Amino acid sequence: MEQRISLVTLGVADVDRSRAFYERMGWSGQQVEQTVFFQTGTMAVVLWGRELLASDAGVSLNPPVPFEGIALAHNVRSAQEVDATLAAAQGAGGTITRPASDTFYGGYAGYFADPDGHLWEVAHNPGFSLGPDGSLTLPDFGSS
Amino acid sequence: MEQRISLVTLGVADVDRSRAFYERMGWSGQQVEQTVFFQTGTMAVVLWGRELLASDAGVSLNPPVPFEGIALAHNVRSAQEVDATLAAAQGAGGTITRPASDTFYGGYAGYFADPDGHLWEVAHNPGFSLGPDGSLTLPDFGSS
Repeated sequence: MEQRISLVTLGVADVDRSRAFYERMGWSGQQVEQTVFFQTGTMAVVLWGRELLASDAGVSLNPPVPFEGIALAHNVRSAQEVDATLAAAQGAGGTITRPASDTFYGGYAGYFADPDGHLWEVAHNPGFSLGPDGSLTLPDFGSS
Repeated sequence: MEQRISLVTLGVADVDRSRAFYERMGWSGQQVEQTVFFQTGTMAVVLWGRELLASDAGVSLNPPVPFEGIALAHNVRSAQEVDATLAAAQGAGGTITRPASDTFYGGYAGYFADPDGHLWEVAHNPGFSLGPDGSLTLPDFGSS
C-alpha cells in the first residue's frame, strides 16, 4: 500500500446540514445525489449518510459515540488563526470540545466537533512546516 | 478554514502493534516517544494512544465501536491492485470487513479494518484520476 490517503469519508446524519456546515467554514463542494465531495489538496473529503457508509464497509451500525477513535487536524500559521478558526466553527454550528491552549510542543491548539461529532484539531505547530498551499511536511525527528 | 486536512490521527490501543501493521503494509514512519508519524503525501497520519487522543480532544472516552463513523480510502490503479492490497492487509493482521466487489460506479472496491478497527476502503475508481504520486483529483461532476 502506498503511503497516502485518497479520501476521508465522514458518515453524517444529514448531508445537507453537514454540507452547509463545511460551506460556512469556507469550503466548496460538489454534490452527486446524496454524496458531497470536497477536493482537499491532493485528496478529497466526502460526506455520505452514516448508515450507507457502515453498510458499504460491511460493519454493524451503532449510534454515534463521543469519541470515534479518529481525529482530523487542520494546521494553521499562527495562534491567532487557531482562535479565528475555532470561533468560525462555533459560529457555523460546530461545538468546541477543547478550547485552545498552549501545547507541550510549543504550539497552540484546540478542538471542535462538526455537527456529527467528527473531531477536528486546529493547531499552530511551529515545528511542522506548512507550504503556501497548506501542505504539511513533517520534520526529521532524528528518530526511526 | 482552508480546504485541506493536515493530519489524520488514529487512536490506537497499542502503538507498537499498530506501527507494525502499517509498516507491514509498506509504510515507513518516525516515532517520537509514544507517537508515530507517517508522511502521507502533503499531509500526515499519526498513531497515538486512544485514551490520550480522547483526553486531548476534550471528549469522553468510550470503548471502540464497530462503526466509528469515518472511513479512510486508498484508491489504486486496477482491480488487481485492490485484491493485492486487501490480501496484504489480511496478511498484516487486518480484517476484511467487506470483500472486494464491483461497485455501482463501474469500479471495484472492498474494505479492511486495521488492528483498532479503523476502516480503510481500497478502491479502483476509474472516474477518479490518480497522479503518478497517487494524488487524487476529483472529476468535474457537472454539479454544484
